[in-house]
Amino acid sequence: MDRLIEKPKLSKATTKRLSLYLRCLKELHKEGVQRIKSSEFSQLTHVGSATIRRDFSQLGELGRSGYGYDVSYLISVFSSILDTIEEKRIALIGCGNLGQALLNNNFRRNENLNIVCAFDTDADKIGSVFNNVEVYSMDRLDEILSKEKVTIAISTVPSQYSQAAVENVVKNGVTAILSFAPDPIKVPEGITVHYIDLTTELQTLIYFDELAQSRRG
Amino acid sequence: MDRLIEKPKLSKATTKRLSLYLRCLKELHKEGVQRIKSSEFSQLTHVGSATIRRDFSQLGELGRSGYGYDVSYLISVFSSILDTIEEKRIALIGCGNLGQALLNNNFRRNENLNIVCAFDTDADKIGSVFNNVEVYSMDRLDEILSKEKVTIAISTVPSQYSQAAVENVVKNGVTAILSFAPDPIKVPEGITVHYIDLTTELQTLIYFDELAQSRRG
Repeated sequence: MDRLIEKPKLSKATTKRLSLYLRCLKELHKEGVQRIKSSEFSQLTHVGSATIRRDFSQLGELGRSGYGYDVSYLISVFSSILDTIEEKRIALIGCGNLGQALLNNNFRRNENLNIVCAFDTDADKIGSVFNNVEVYSMDRLDEILSKEKVTIAISTVPSQYSQAAVENVVKNGVTAILSFAPDPIKVPEGITVHYIDLTTELQTLIYFDELAQSRRG
Repeated sequence: MDRLIEKPKLSKATTKRLSLYLRCLKELHKEGVQRIKSSEFSQLTHVGSATIRRDFSQLGELGRSGYGYDVSYLISVFSSILDTIEEKRIALIGCGNLGQALLNNNFRRNENLNIVCAFDTDADKIGSVFNNVEVYSMDRLDEILSKEKVTIAISTVPSQYSQAAVENVVKNGVTAILSFAPDPIKVPEGITVHYIDLTTELQTLIYFDELAQSRRG
Protein backbone atom coordinates (compact mmCIF):
# COMPACT_ATOMS: atom_id res chain seq x y z
CA MET A 1 0.00 0.00 0.00
CA ASP A 2 3.06 2.32 0.33
CA ARG A 3 2.90 3.65 -3.19
CA LEU A 4 -0.66 4.84 -2.80
CA ILE A 5 0.42 7.30 -0.16
CA GLU A 6 2.88 8.89 -2.58
CA LYS A 7 0.14 9.67 -5.10
CA PRO A 8 -0.40 13.38 -5.66
CA LYS A 9 -3.87 14.59 -4.70
CA LEU A 10 -5.42 15.64 -7.96
CA SER A 11 -8.76 17.22 -8.74
CA LYS A 12 -11.35 15.20 -10.60
CA ALA A 13 -10.80 17.36 -13.70
CA THR A 14 -7.02 16.78 -13.65
CA THR A 15 -7.50 13.05 -13.11
CA LYS A 16 -9.77 12.80 -16.13
CA ARG A 17 -7.27 14.72 -18.23
CA LEU A 18 -4.49 12.46 -16.93
CA SER A 19 -6.32 9.46 -18.29
CA LEU A 20 -6.75 11.24 -21.64
CA TYR A 21 -3.03 12.19 -21.66
CA LEU A 22 -2.08 8.60 -20.99
CA ARG A 23 -4.18 7.29 -23.84
CA CYS A 24 -2.73 9.84 -26.29
CA LEU A 25 0.83 9.14 -25.10
CA LYS A 26 0.36 5.43 -25.73
CA GLU A 27 -0.79 6.24 -29.28
CA LEU A 28 2.31 8.41 -29.79
CA HIS A 29 4.53 5.65 -28.41
CA LYS A 30 2.94 3.15 -30.82
CA GLU A 31 3.71 5.54 -33.70
CA GLY A 32 7.36 5.72 -32.59
CA VAL A 33 7.27 9.30 -31.22
CA GLN A 34 9.88 9.71 -28.46
CA ARG A 35 9.60 13.36 -27.40
CA ILE A 36 6.72 15.81 -27.46
CA LYS A 37 6.37 19.52 -26.69
CA SER A 38 3.40 20.78 -24.68
CA SER A 39 2.20 22.82 -27.69
CA GLU A 40 2.13 19.71 -29.90
CA PHE A 41 0.52 17.69 -27.12
CA SER A 42 -2.10 20.41 -26.78
CA GLN A 43 -3.12 20.05 -30.45
CA LEU A 44 -3.40 16.29 -30.08
CA THR A 45 -5.42 16.27 -26.86
CA HIS A 46 -7.47 19.46 -27.47
CA VAL A 47 -6.40 20.64 -23.99
CA GLY A 48 -4.89 24.14 -23.70
CA SER A 49 -1.10 24.10 -23.36
CA ALA A 50 -1.24 26.24 -20.21
CA THR A 51 -3.50 23.60 -18.63
CA ILE A 52 -1.15 20.84 -19.77
CA ARG A 53 1.88 22.59 -18.26
CA ARG A 54 -0.01 23.21 -15.01
CA ASP A 55 -1.18 19.59 -14.83
CA PHE A 56 2.31 18.27 -15.61
CA SER A 57 3.89 20.45 -12.93
CA GLN A 58 1.52 18.91 -10.36
CA LEU A 59 2.41 15.42 -11.46
CA GLY A 60 6.14 15.57 -10.71
CA GLU A 61 9.47 16.42 -12.32
CA LEU A 62 8.59 15.51 -15.86
CA GLY A 63 11.07 17.51 -17.91
CA ARG A 64 11.20 20.92 -19.49
CA SER A 65 8.30 22.21 -21.53
CA GLY A 66 10.41 23.91 -24.24
CA TYR A 67 12.73 20.97 -24.83
CA GLY A 68 9.86 18.51 -24.85
CA TYR A 69 8.84 15.62 -22.67
CA ASP A 70 10.03 12.03 -22.97
CA VAL A 71 7.00 9.99 -24.06
CA SER A 72 8.02 6.68 -22.40
CA TYR A 73 8.85 8.41 -19.14
CA LEU A 74 5.50 10.22 -19.05
CA ILE A 75 3.74 6.90 -19.71
CA SER A 76 5.49 5.25 -16.78
CA VAL A 77 4.81 8.13 -14.37
CA PHE A 78 1.17 8.59 -15.41
CA SER A 79 0.49 4.85 -15.38
CA SER A 80 1.81 4.59 -11.88
CA ILE A 81 -0.36 7.50 -10.72
CA LEU A 82 -3.44 5.97 -12.32
CA ASP A 83 -2.25 2.60 -11.08
CA THR A 84 -2.94 0.82 -14.32
CA ILE A 85 0.10 -1.39 -13.84
CA GLU A 86 -1.83 -3.89 -11.77
CA GLU A 87 -4.95 -5.56 -13.05
CA LYS A 88 -8.28 -4.09 -11.90
CA ARG A 89 -10.91 -6.80 -11.63
CA ILE A 90 -14.43 -5.54 -12.20
CA ALA A 91 -17.93 -6.97 -11.71
CA LEU A 92 -20.77 -5.94 -13.99
CA ILE A 93 -24.22 -5.73 -12.42
CA GLY A 94 -26.99 -5.84 -15.03
CA CYS A 95 -26.59 -7.55 -18.42
CA GLY A 96 -29.16 -5.77 -20.59
CA ASN A 97 -28.12 -4.10 -23.85
CA LEU A 98 -25.85 -1.61 -22.11
CA GLY A 99 -24.27 -4.34 -19.96
CA GLN A 100 -23.70 -6.50 -23.03
CA ALA A 101 -22.09 -3.56 -24.85
CA LEU A 102 -19.67 -3.18 -21.92
CA LEU A 103 -18.92 -6.92 -21.92
CA ASN A 104 -18.28 -6.98 -25.66
CA ASN A 105 -15.92 -4.04 -25.44
CA ASN A 106 -14.53 -4.90 -21.97
CA PHE A 107 -12.17 -1.89 -21.91
CA ARG A 108 -9.99 -3.56 -24.49
CA ARG A 109 -7.94 -0.39 -24.91
CA ASN A 110 -6.58 -0.94 -21.43
CA GLU A 111 -5.36 -4.46 -20.75
CA ASN A 112 -5.43 -3.87 -16.99
CA LEU A 113 -9.14 -3.09 -16.76
CA ASN A 114 -11.12 -6.31 -16.93
CA ILE A 115 -14.73 -7.18 -16.27
CA VAL A 116 -14.26 -10.69 -14.86
CA CYS A 117 -17.80 -11.59 -13.82
CA ALA A 118 -21.34 -10.39 -14.46
CA PHE A 119 -24.63 -10.62 -12.58
CA ASP A 120 -28.29 -10.41 -13.49
CA THR A 121 -31.64 -11.37 -12.03
CA ASP A 122 -33.04 -12.62 -15.36
CA ALA A 123 -33.07 -16.45 -15.42
CA ASP A 124 -32.62 -16.37 -19.22
CA LYS A 125 -29.31 -14.56 -18.85
CA ILE A 126 -27.87 -16.43 -15.88
CA GLY A 127 -25.39 -19.04 -17.11
CA SER A 128 -24.79 -17.20 -20.42
CA VAL A 129 -21.28 -16.24 -21.42
CA PHE A 130 -20.56 -12.94 -23.21
CA ASN A 131 -17.05 -12.45 -24.56
CA ASN A 132 -15.74 -15.10 -22.09
CA VAL A 133 -17.44 -13.53 -19.06
CA GLU A 134 -20.02 -15.65 -17.25
CA VAL A 135 -23.32 -14.24 -15.97
CA TYR A 136 -24.24 -15.33 -12.42
CA SER A 137 -27.37 -14.98 -10.33
CA MET A 138 -27.34 -12.03 -7.91
CA ASP A 139 -27.72 -14.64 -5.14
CA ARG A 140 -24.13 -15.68 -5.76
CA LEU A 141 -22.57 -12.19 -5.34
CA ASP A 142 -20.94 -13.14 -2.02
CA GLU A 143 -19.28 -16.30 -3.34
CA ILE A 144 -18.20 -14.99 -6.77
CA LEU A 145 -16.95 -11.51 -5.77
CA SER A 146 -14.78 -13.06 -3.08
CA LYS A 147 -13.49 -15.84 -5.38
CA GLU A 148 -12.78 -13.35 -8.18
CA LYS A 149 -11.21 -10.79 -5.79
CA VAL A 150 -13.39 -7.98 -7.12
CA THR A 151 -13.67 -4.59 -5.37
CA ILE A 152 -14.94 -2.52 -8.31
CA ALA A 153 -18.41 -2.75 -9.84
CA ILE A 154 -20.22 -1.20 -12.78
CA SER A 155 -23.98 -1.00 -12.38
CA THR A 156 -26.31 -0.75 -15.37
CA VAL A 157 -29.29 -1.64 -13.16
CA PRO A 158 -32.40 0.55 -13.75
CA SER A 159 -32.84 3.49 -11.34
CA GLN A 160 -35.55 1.90 -9.20
CA TYR A 161 -33.32 -1.11 -8.36
CA SER A 162 -30.04 0.77 -8.27
CA GLN A 163 -29.87 1.54 -4.52
CA ALA A 164 -30.59 -2.09 -3.55
CA ALA A 165 -28.07 -3.48 -6.05
CA VAL A 166 -25.34 -1.14 -4.84
CA GLU A 167 -26.02 -1.96 -1.17
CA ASN A 168 -25.70 -5.61 -2.08
CA VAL A 169 -22.29 -5.27 -3.76
CA VAL A 170 -20.98 -2.95 -1.02
CA LYS A 171 -21.97 -5.54 1.60
CA ASN A 172 -19.84 -7.99 -0.36
CA GLY A 173 -16.63 -5.97 -0.37
CA VAL A 174 -16.98 -3.58 -3.33
CA THR A 175 -15.61 -0.10 -2.56
CA ALA A 176 -15.95 1.62 -5.97
CA ILE A 177 -19.06 1.78 -8.15
CA LEU A 178 -19.64 3.30 -11.58
CA SER A 179 -23.39 3.77 -11.96
CA PHE A 180 -25.32 4.40 -15.16
CA ALA A 181 -28.44 5.27 -13.15
CA PRO A 182 -28.02 8.96 -12.40
CA ASP A 183 -30.07 9.13 -9.18
CA PRO A 184 -27.79 9.69 -6.18
CA ILE A 185 -27.19 6.46 -4.24
CA LYS A 186 -26.58 6.48 -0.48
CA VAL A 187 -23.40 4.64 0.45
CA PRO A 188 -21.35 4.30 3.66
CA GLU A 189 -18.27 6.48 4.15
CA GLY A 190 -15.21 5.24 2.29
CA ILE A 191 -17.23 3.98 -0.68
CA THR A 192 -16.77 5.88 -3.96
CA VAL A 193 -19.61 6.18 -6.47
CA HIS A 194 -19.32 7.96 -9.81
CA TYR A 195 -22.24 8.43 -12.18
CA ILE A 196 -22.48 8.44 -15.94
CA ASP A 197 -25.51 10.54 -16.74
CA LEU A 198 -26.19 10.49 -20.45
CA THR A 199 -29.04 13.02 -20.24
CA THR A 200 -26.71 15.54 -18.61
CA GLU A 201 -24.01 14.87 -21.19
CA LEU A 202 -26.49 15.44 -23.98
CA GLN A 203 -27.90 18.63 -22.44
CA THR A 204 -24.39 19.99 -21.99
CA LEU A 205 -23.59 19.22 -25.63
CA ILE A 206 -26.78 20.99 -26.75
CA TYR A 207 -26.00 24.04 -24.63
CA PHE A 208 -22.55 24.42 -26.24
CA ASP A 209 -23.94 23.73 -29.70
CA GLU A 210 -26.50 26.51 -29.29
CA LEU A 211 -23.85 28.95 -28.10
CA ALA A 212 -21.75 28.04 -31.16
CA GLN A 213 -24.72 28.41 -33.55
CA SER A 214 -25.72 31.77 -32.04
CA ARG A 215 -22.16 33.05 -32.57
CA ARG A 216 -22.37 31.99 -36.21
CA GLY A 217 -25.50 34.18 -36.35
CA MET B 1 -32.84 33.03 -32.07
CA ASP B 2 -32.99 36.13 -29.77
CA ARG B 3 -33.21 34.21 -26.55
CA LEU B 4 -30.00 32.35 -27.31
CA ILE B 5 -28.06 35.57 -27.12
CA GLU B 6 -29.31 36.22 -23.59
CA LYS B 7 -27.93 32.94 -22.29
CA PRO B 8 -25.20 33.35 -19.68
CA LYS B 9 -21.81 31.95 -20.74
CA LEU B 10 -21.26 29.07 -18.38
CA SER B 11 -18.30 26.75 -17.95
CA LYS B 12 -18.70 23.10 -18.90
CA ALA B 13 -18.63 22.16 -15.21
CA THR B 14 -21.40 24.64 -14.33
CA THR B 15 -23.49 23.49 -17.27
CA LYS B 16 -23.25 19.87 -16.15
CA ARG B 17 -24.24 20.85 -12.62
CA LEU B 18 -27.13 22.92 -14.01
CA SER B 19 -28.51 19.82 -15.65
CA LEU B 20 -28.16 17.91 -12.35
CA TYR B 21 -29.85 20.78 -10.47
CA LEU B 22 -32.72 20.76 -12.93
CA ARG B 23 -33.30 17.04 -12.54
CA CYS B 24 -33.27 17.26 -8.73
CA LEU B 25 -35.61 20.28 -8.77
CA LYS B 26 -38.09 18.37 -10.91
CA GLU B 27 -38.02 15.54 -8.36
CA LEU B 28 -38.67 18.05 -5.56
CA HIS B 29 -41.50 19.61 -7.52
CA LYS B 30 -43.05 16.16 -8.03
CA GLU B 31 -42.87 15.61 -4.26
CA GLY B 32 -44.66 18.91 -3.68
CA VAL B 33 -41.65 20.86 -2.31
CA GLN B 34 -42.09 24.58 -3.05
CA ARG B 35 -39.02 26.23 -1.51
CA ILE B 36 -35.51 24.96 -0.86
CA LYS B 37 -32.45 26.38 0.91
CA SER B 38 -29.02 26.01 -0.66
CA SER B 39 -27.89 23.88 2.31
CA GLU B 40 -30.75 21.41 1.77
CA PHE B 41 -30.18 21.45 -1.96
CA SER B 42 -26.52 20.69 -1.33
CA GLN B 43 -27.38 17.52 0.58
CA LEU B 44 -29.66 16.38 -2.18
CA THR B 45 -27.31 17.05 -5.09
CA HIS B 46 -24.01 16.21 -3.33
CA VAL B 47 -22.67 19.58 -4.56
CA GLY B 48 -21.10 21.92 -1.97
CA SER B 49 -23.42 24.76 -0.92
CA ALA B 50 -20.75 27.38 -1.74
CA THR B 51 -20.61 25.99 -5.28
CA ILE B 52 -24.40 26.02 -5.51
CA ARG B 53 -24.59 29.66 -4.38
CA ARG B 54 -21.83 30.62 -6.82
CA ASP B 55 -23.56 28.80 -9.69
CA PHE B 56 -26.94 30.32 -8.83
CA SER B 57 -25.50 33.83 -8.69
CA GLN B 58 -24.18 33.36 -12.25
CA LEU B 59 -27.57 32.19 -13.46
CA GLY B 60 -29.53 35.32 -12.61
CA GLU B 61 -31.60 36.85 -9.82
CA LEU B 62 -32.92 33.65 -8.33
CA GLY B 63 -33.81 34.67 -4.77
CA ARG B 64 -32.07 34.83 -1.45
CA SER B 65 -30.04 31.88 -0.20
CA GLY B 66 -31.14 32.15 3.47
CA TYR B 67 -34.84 32.46 2.73
CA GLY B 68 -34.78 29.67 0.19
CA TYR B 69 -35.35 29.48 -3.51
CA ASP B 70 -38.68 28.96 -5.24
CA VAL B 71 -38.56 25.52 -6.86
CA SER B 72 -40.92 26.25 -9.77
CA TYR B 73 -39.13 29.47 -10.60
CA LEU B 74 -35.73 27.77 -10.62
CA ILE B 75 -37.13 25.08 -12.91
CA SER B 76 -38.40 27.66 -15.39
CA VAL B 77 -35.12 29.65 -15.41
CA PHE B 78 -32.86 26.60 -15.64
CA SER B 79 -35.02 24.97 -18.31
CA SER B 80 -34.84 28.07 -20.41
CA ILE B 81 -31.04 28.23 -20.05
CA LEU B 82 -30.71 24.58 -21.00
CA ASP B 83 -33.37 25.15 -23.65
CA THR B 84 -35.26 21.99 -22.82
CA ILE B 85 -38.56 23.70 -23.53
CA GLU B 86 -38.37 22.92 -27.20
CA GLU B 87 -37.98 19.41 -28.48
CA LYS B 88 -34.48 18.32 -29.45
CA ARG B 89 -34.57 15.80 -32.29
CA ILE B 90 -31.65 13.42 -32.30
CA ALA B 91 -30.26 10.85 -34.75
CA LEU B 92 -28.52 7.73 -33.49
CA ILE B 93 -25.64 6.43 -35.61
CA GLY B 94 -24.83 2.78 -34.84
CA CYS B 95 -27.42 0.32 -33.51
CA GLY B 96 -25.31 -2.30 -31.76
CA ASN B 97 -25.92 -3.17 -28.10
CA LEU B 98 -25.05 0.32 -26.90
CA GLY B 99 -27.19 1.96 -29.57
CA GLN B 100 -30.10 -0.32 -28.70
CA ALA B 101 -29.72 0.52 -25.01
CA LEU B 102 -30.00 4.22 -25.94
CA LEU B 103 -33.05 3.56 -28.11
CA ASN B 104 -34.79 1.56 -25.38
CA ASN B 105 -34.17 4.27 -22.81
CA ASN B 106 -34.49 7.21 -25.26
CA PHE B 107 -33.89 9.85 -22.54
CA ARG B 108 -37.31 9.16 -21.13
CA ARG B 109 -36.52 11.29 -18.09
CA ASN B 110 -36.59 14.31 -20.35
CA GLU B 111 -39.57 14.48 -22.67
CA ASN B 112 -37.85 17.07 -24.89
CA LEU B 113 -34.88 14.90 -25.81
CA ASN B 114 -35.91 12.38 -28.44
CA ILE B 115 -33.99 10.05 -30.69
CA VAL B 116 -36.23 10.16 -33.76
CA CYS B 117 -34.24 8.10 -36.27
CA ALA B 118 -31.38 5.61 -36.26
CA PHE B 119 -28.80 4.48 -38.80
CA ASP B 120 -26.64 1.42 -39.29
CA THR B 121 -24.66 -0.26 -42.06
CA ASP B 122 -25.79 -3.76 -41.08
CA ALA B 123 -28.44 -5.04 -43.52
CA ASP B 124 -29.94 -7.18 -40.74
CA LYS B 125 -30.68 -4.08 -38.68
CA ILE B 126 -31.89 -1.75 -41.44
CA GLY B 127 -35.69 -1.65 -41.41
CA SER B 128 -35.92 -2.81 -37.78
CA VAL B 129 -37.83 -0.70 -35.29
CA PHE B 130 -36.62 -0.33 -31.69
CA ASN B 131 -38.99 1.38 -29.26
CA ASN B 132 -40.80 3.04 -32.21
CA VAL B 133 -37.60 4.33 -33.83
CA GLU B 134 -36.80 3.03 -37.31
CA VAL B 135 -33.29 2.04 -38.40
CA TYR B 136 -32.26 3.35 -41.83
CA SER B 137 -29.32 2.66 -44.11
CA MET B 138 -26.47 5.18 -43.83
CA ASP B 139 -27.09 5.89 -47.53
CA ARG B 140 -30.32 7.63 -46.56
CA LEU B 141 -28.74 10.11 -44.08
CA ASP B 142 -29.29 13.07 -46.40
CA GLU B 143 -32.98 12.37 -46.97
CA ILE B 144 -33.96 11.31 -43.43
CA LEU B 145 -31.99 13.94 -41.43
CA SER B 146 -33.52 16.67 -43.52
CA LYS B 147 -37.04 15.21 -43.31
CA GLU B 148 -36.74 14.67 -39.55
CA LYS B 149 -35.16 18.12 -38.98
CA VAL B 150 -32.28 16.65 -36.99
CA THR B 151 -29.17 18.67 -36.08
CA ILE B 152 -27.91 16.54 -33.16
CA ALA B 153 -26.40 13.06 -33.45
CA ILE B 154 -25.17 10.41 -31.06
CA SER B 155 -22.50 8.13 -32.50
CA THR B 156 -21.86 4.65 -31.09
CA VAL B 157 -19.84 3.75 -34.17
CA PRO B 158 -16.56 1.89 -33.42
CA SER B 159 -13.42 4.08 -33.30
CA GLN B 160 -12.06 3.10 -36.71
CA TYR B 161 -15.27 4.24 -38.48
CA SER B 162 -16.03 7.16 -36.21
CA GLN B 163 -14.32 9.94 -38.20
CA ALA B 164 -16.05 8.91 -41.45
CA ALA B 165 -19.46 8.60 -39.79
CA VAL B 166 -19.17 12.02 -38.18
CA GLU B 167 -18.04 13.67 -41.44
CA ASN B 168 -21.09 12.14 -43.08
CA VAL B 169 -23.59 13.54 -40.55
CA VAL B 170 -21.89 16.94 -40.48
CA LYS B 171 -22.15 17.13 -44.27
CA ASN B 172 -25.88 16.57 -43.79
CA GLY B 173 -26.49 19.43 -41.38
CA VAL B 174 -25.66 18.02 -37.95
CA THR B 175 -23.86 20.57 -35.73
CA ALA B 176 -23.62 18.67 -32.42
CA ILE B 177 -22.28 15.14 -31.89
CA LEU B 178 -22.01 13.02 -28.76
CA SER B 179 -19.42 10.32 -29.49
CA PHE B 180 -18.87 7.11 -27.55
CA ALA B 181 -15.60 6.52 -29.43
CA PRO B 182 -13.05 8.47 -27.39
CA ASP B 183 -10.54 9.19 -30.17
CA PRO B 184 -10.57 12.88 -31.10
CA ILE B 185 -12.52 13.54 -34.29
CA LYS B 186 -11.62 16.39 -36.63
CA VAL B 187 -14.61 18.63 -37.39
CA PRO B 188 -15.04 22.02 -39.08
CA GLU B 189 -15.31 25.16 -36.95
CA GLY B 190 -18.76 25.68 -35.43
CA ILE B 191 -19.36 21.95 -34.92
CA THR B 192 -19.46 20.75 -31.31
CA VAL B 193 -18.31 17.25 -30.37
CA HIS B 194 -18.40 15.84 -26.84
CA TYR B 195 -17.02 12.44 -25.92
CA ILE B 196 -18.13 9.85 -23.44
CA ASP B 197 -15.03 7.91 -22.56
CA LEU B 198 -15.90 5.01 -20.30
CA THR B 199 -12.26 3.97 -19.77
CA THR B 200 -11.43 7.44 -18.46
CA GLU B 201 -14.51 7.42 -16.21
CA LEU B 202 -13.46 4.07 -14.79
CA GLN B 203 -9.83 5.11 -14.24
CA THR B 204 -10.98 8.27 -12.47
CA LEU B 205 -13.25 6.21 -10.22
CA ILE B 206 -10.39 3.84 -9.40
CA TYR B 207 -8.05 6.71 -8.59
CA PHE B 208 -10.52 8.19 -6.08
CA ASP B 209 -11.30 4.74 -4.64
CA GLU B 210 -7.62 4.13 -4.00
CA LEU B 211 -7.20 7.50 -2.31
CA ALA B 212 -10.21 6.67 -0.11
CA GLN B 213 -8.90 3.21 0.75
CA SER B 214 -5.40 4.54 1.56
CA ARG B 215 -6.97 7.05 3.97
CA ARG B 216 -8.81 4.21 5.67
CA GLY B 217 -5.33 2.65 6.15
